[in-house]
Amino acid sequence: MKFSDLGEFGFINRITRRCPIQPPFILKGIGDDAAVISFSDDLVILLTADQLIEGFHFRIDETEGKRLGAKALAVNLSDIAAMGGYPIGYTLSLGIPSQRIALDFLDAFYEGITSFGEMMGVALIGGDTSESGERFFISLALLGKASKGKVIYRGGGKDGDLLYVTGWLGDAALGLRISEQGGNRAGKENLLARHFSPLPRVKEGQVLAERGIPNAMIDISDGLLADLNHIVEQSGVGAEVDLSGVPRSPEFQIWARDFAADPLSLALSGGEDYELLFSVSPEKSIQVAQLSQELDVPITCIGKLAREIKGIWLKDEQGRSKKAEPRGYDHFKTG
Amino acid sequence: MKFSDLGEFGFINRITRRCPIQPPFILKGIGDDAAVISFSDDLVILLTADQLIEGFHFRIDETEGKRLGAKALAVNLSDIAAMGGYPIGYTLSLGIPSQRIALDFLDAFYEGITSFGEMMGVALIGGDTSESGERFFISLALLGKASKGKVIYRGGGKDGDLLYVTGWLGDAALGLRISEQGGNRAGKENLLARHFSPLPRVKEGQVLAERGIPNAMIDISDGLLADLNHIVEQSGVGAEVDLSGVPRSPEFQIWARDFAADPLSLALSGGEDYELLFSVSPEKSIQVAQLSQELDVPITCIGKLAREIKGIWLKDEQGRSKKAEPRGYDHFKTG
Repeated sequence: MKFSDLGEFGFINRITRRCPIQPPFILKGIGDDAAVISFSDDLVILLTADQLIEGFHFRIDETEGKRLGAKALAVNLSDIAAMGGYPIGYTLSLGIPSQRIALDFLDAFYEGITSFGEMMGVALIGGDTSESGERFFISLALLGKASKGKVIYRGGGKDGDLLYVTGWLGDAALGLRISEQGGNRAGKENLLARHFSPLPRVKEGQVLAERGIPNAMIDISDGLLADLNHIVEQSGVGAEVDLSGVPRSPEFQIWARDFAADPLSLALSGGEDYELLFSVSPEKSIQVAQLSQELDVPITCIGKLAREIKGIWLKDEQGRSKKAEPRGYDHFKTG
Repeated sequence: MKFSDLGEFGFINRITRRCPIQPPFILKGIGDDAAVISFSDDLVILLTADQLIEGFHFRIDETEGKRLGAKALAVNLSDIAAMGGYPIGYTLSLGIPSQRIALDFLDAFYEGITSFGEMMGVALIGGDTSESGERFFISLALLGKASKGKVIYRGGGKDGDLLYVTGWLGDAALGLRISEQGGNRAGKENLLARHFSPLPRVKEGQVLAERGIPNAMIDISDGLLADLNHIVEQSGVGAEVDLSGVPRSPEFQIWARDFAADPLSLALSGGEDYELLFSVSPEKSIQVAQLSQELDVPITCIGKLAREIKGIWLKDEQGRSKKAEPRGYDHFKTG
């Protein structure tokens, strides 16, 4: 059997099954946005790791060093946000093709990651640097903390919960296509920024968790349906997504038709949105609306969880339902 | 300026100088074996990250998957050991050339890292997996903890301290040469094991720190002189190394002459020893001897620190001294 037949999630499932029983102070190991470790009576540690690899996650010639640095940190911050946590500091391991990468690019990369870190209140605290041959490799581990009892997991979704997402979906995937294919119309920079300079919902995740609003939460990195599928599988419930409710930005609506045969599928499965997807007991929906106003962030109800539903179903504007394939980006199965 | 002109340590110095001022709860950021973060009244968090890159740190065709997995964890454990800390859990990010790497190899890799982890009491708690094209990339971040006030830093060395190392030096570098060039004599497996299956001195580091014995400590990963240089620079003292005292194993003495024009330089600068180097006030030397007996580990005095010495000096058996070049392995400057 070749590794590529298994795919990323098949491989992760394979590893998780084999992992020996974990000590009791590890409240959550593999399988959520971040690991959760019991550390004191009132606090837990969070730890997450994400990597970006040249040619697969980014292209050097299409990416400014500064934006790339900030993005490498942002994708990790998004994982801490999805637990409702407070980020502290990160290690950065770089594999550098030293004969090809200009020092200027690396300086810009560091400027980007450290200044974005300063803005977000997290510090660079360690790492490793080596020659890597062909590709620029960026690997981060981000440490965070949270109040014990306030952490939100993927598996907490309950029968009857309403599903919400922050912000807009599909912009980042559309921005990537525009950067590859060009074009010139109003709103272009916003879409490109959603791809090159994602802003993780750290504050939103913290406020949601502190107020105990969500039952389950995840960040949307692989696409709405793929990430919803994690909530569905780990919570033991099904989901119905109301397609007319999937929030698409004004820019998306201007640009999408020219860059995607099926704009809706870009919003459902494009990936790299770095928005939060969470489920809420219906009686707390008023609190979601208040929070959306307070933080001035769109938060949209896109469906519900229900025990009697198997898997994920998509309901169109005519009220017809069909079962969804929870497709998202899989590094080993696309192409 | 090309990146390769700067070298790994030049680059790290460049980054460290630029890092913005860090918040007070970060007791140590870049520049030691692990970062140290204040977390509760009595405990600190430790975080370290190290990577292994195919073709630079290992060759797939010369390495068993199981040993490679264990080694990837061992080199990180060695950093926690050097702080006197207790390892907890690690994230593992892999870049996988999926068309080339056999699933069997990856399974063996996971078997190696998780079973070594179980032996050392640390759990796999997260990570990331992506396609990587040409090379197999292994990137770990290891979380640990320590009692506040018990952590040992590189910069704590004092005028008059005695310098000690655990175990033997040069075996791993010699083992690498033997694996590349072959040969057959007694003790070969021991030397190969020192290269392929290093055993980090976690217990030794913990006992040293708990008893408050060392003033400064580091693990020897880049070679004795390169790592001693970190203690010297950060402690603001010089060092004299007594060359006749540098501990070489019986196997080293049998094999070294055939594989190195200058066996002593292999012991001084070969790297990958993963032994502990630490400095101790002379009145505590009796405690070092006791600990060596208790743990049944050779611990050898190899010299001293002194304020009046500039840099590192090597004293030979005739009592002659010469200044050392603190050369160790630099990924960007060897070639």
